[in-house]
Amino acid sequence: MYSASYLEKFIKEIFTSIGTSENDAIQAAKVLISADLRGVDSHGVARLSGYVRLWEKQRLNSNPKIKIIHETPSTAVIDGDLGAGLIVAPFAMKIAIEKAKNVGSGWVAIRNSNHFGIAGYHSMLALEHDMIGFSMTNASPLVAPTFSTSKFLGTNPISIAIPAGKQPPVVIDMATTSVANGKLEVLQRKNMSMPEGWAQDSDGNPTTDAAILKKGGAMLPLGSDRIHGSHKGYCLSSWVDIFSAVLSGANYGPWVPPFVAYIDPIKESVGDGIGHFVGAWRVDAFRKTDEFKSHMDNWIEKFRSATPAKGEEKVLIPGDPEREITKERLKNGINLLPAVVADLKELGKKYNIIFSDN
Amino acid sequence: MYSASYLEKFIKEIFTSIGTSENDAIQAAKVLISADLRGVDSHGVARLSGYVRLWEKQRLNSNPKIKIIHETPSTAVIDGDLGAGLIVAPFAMKIAIEKAKNVGSGWVAIRNSNHFGIAGYHSMLALEHDMIGFSMTNASPLVAPTFSTSKFLGTNPISIAIPAGKQPPVVIDMATTSVANGKLEVLQRKNMSMPEGWAQDSDGNPTTDAAILKKGGAMLPLGSDRIHGSHKGYCLSSWVDIFSAVLSGANYGPWVPPFVAYIDPIKESVGDGIGHFVGAWRVDAFRKTDEFKSHMDNWIEKFRSATPAKGEEKVLIPGDPEREITKERLKNGINLLPAVVADLKELGKKYNIIFSDN
Repeated sequence: MYSASYLEKFIKEIFTSIGTSENDAIQAAKVLISADLRGVDSHGVARLSGYVRLWEKQRLNSNPKIKIIHETPSTAVIDGDLGAGLIVAPFAMKIAIEKAKNVGSGWVAIRNSNHFGIAGYHSMLALEHDMIGFSMTNASPLVAPTFSTSKFLGTNPISIAIPAGKQPPVVIDMATTSVANGKLEVLQRKNMSMPEGWAQDSDGNPTTDAAILKKGGAMLPLGSDRIHGSHKGYCLSSWVDIFSAVLSGANYGPWVPPFVAYIDPIKESVGDGIGHFVGAWRVDAFRKTDEFKSHMDNWIEKFRSATPAKGEEKVLIPGDPEREITKERLKNGINLLPAVVADLKELGKKYNIIFSDN
Repeated sequence: MYSASYLEKFIKEIFTSIGTSENDAIQAAKVLISADLRGVDSHGVARLSGYVRLWEKQRLNSNPKIKIIHETPSTAVIDGDLGAGLIVAPFAMKIAIEKAKNVGSGWVAIRNSNHFGIAGYHSMLALEHDMIGFSMTNASPLVAPTFSTSKFLGTNPISIAIPAGKQPPVVIDMATTSVANGKLEVLQRKNMSMPEGWAQDSDGNPTTDAAILKKGGAMLPLGSDRIHGSHKGYCLSSWVDIFSAVLSGANYGPWVPPFVAYIDPIKESVGDGIGHFVGAWRVDAFRKTDEFKSHMDNWIEKFRSATPAKGEEKVLIPGDPEREITKERLKNGINLLPAVVADLKELGKKYNIIFSDN
């Protein structure tokens, strides 16, 4: 078991070792560790060496000079200078929050960035300002549009964080696929099959083979198949792709560069890096903050009191599962898989930073 | 077969007959007929008598004085004065568009409204201004949160309309359920069963009984069940509910008043009427309009060229199916079910307006 603070310090030191400024390294570490604390293991410290490998291949700039390219009172476009999204997206959120302070809402489209960790970290930055936060990003293509076998879309998540009063905030953070790619990977490692409706084979047929992505298969948009609304998941994913990249000037669709360093990006490009889109609405730009929060409490309490279906214990509100994991992991620490520990030790060795065994 | 213009004129005349101003009646007719033209028959002229019955019960104000309650440069809250959403939502969109002209984006939360027809009509109003349009609304509770049997949410649609250049716009208009309620109603009338994953029985079990809503069952959020991501559909629907009603001061969750006049609203209320949320982003608040449009064309052409799955003809982009129906219905007219024709004749008689047989 590792404490969050231990891992956070290690992440920070690795980033400074590859040339990232102290402040940016602290920021990157905060975003990565927030994923481990919220139970999204695939997006946390386990990804650290992936960022370093991208930097080694000069596909990530460890010390980006982020620039505002264009702005209006409520919008901006920024160029992330090929930095880690872990650094670029919080920078963009600060601009969005500042604009929301001034004119009620703020929107920033980001190009020339890299993987930004969990979407929820960025949207949640708005909460302490009594604002509603919004974030989305496009990602390496793994998902096929409805009726297609072409992998043209990423898991393209959407996150919305809404403050409440006595109750914790409502935090939505969801891939626009029927399931996270991490779940396929886990089953594949265990040589187990998966439920139908998560992915399709190379002809577009249903499959339970968890290794199907390696055989020309594709992940499916939320809804799984046409009859259960996969065209809606396809719509949501398209929205994320267009806002993250067409609005900002990043790569979209099949042109999005892969996050993993061992896959080379295709030569053709239609923009710079990957793209994100973030924003904030000030609550009191609509309604008195106290009034809003007390109705949010009422909304949350009502939904918590919904009748559980037969065999279910209780009804959750968005953000509950992650909050429970955070509580548990802050108390008991974070368990890393042996492969992740080995990877981090190896990474530490490169930069003379010891990664402990405990 | 009826021409769209004939039906539109009839709708307009019915609205003026119940006291709606000429301009508002024209607006309401435009919204309703746009549903018939886009193939969303459940939200078109077939609903006209429903609005009138609500007015008869004094649950709809035929001549609303819509007021701005609060505003900032990029946001506003308006009170719809219990008018039809068909009139209130376009009014709100005009404000959003005006704000976007001034500061880059505009957002309007609406309370004290009624059913606003198809969400897509409102978002599409932004297109002619080279803006991206956004609209959502809450609706009568028919949908159970994941793990629950309580009908606490409506079909709560989201619409986003994005302009392109030579290509037609990308228009997303989707309920956040796995299927539209209209599909259940059609199967029920034909005494047919439905696929699993569309609704659940009163205990929360899967069912194929298309009449299950009358027996304590509930519709399911997009994703159908937990394993296929229904918690994500529940998240999206919650987002729509909170933005439409908690942000605006309308009724939310189980307190949303029913659209059908024969079901009385519950006595307890937490706000005024139902709520919507609309907005607009100016494209050139992010990127030169021409540049954006040419990349949208490229995006659309690329997705149209995706490889079809085995047995599928082609890959569609959001908005394609509705555009095809519009083209066909503008040419050949709109076919109404005998029950709808009878209903409209009856309605016409009340106000001395003849509804023809043809």
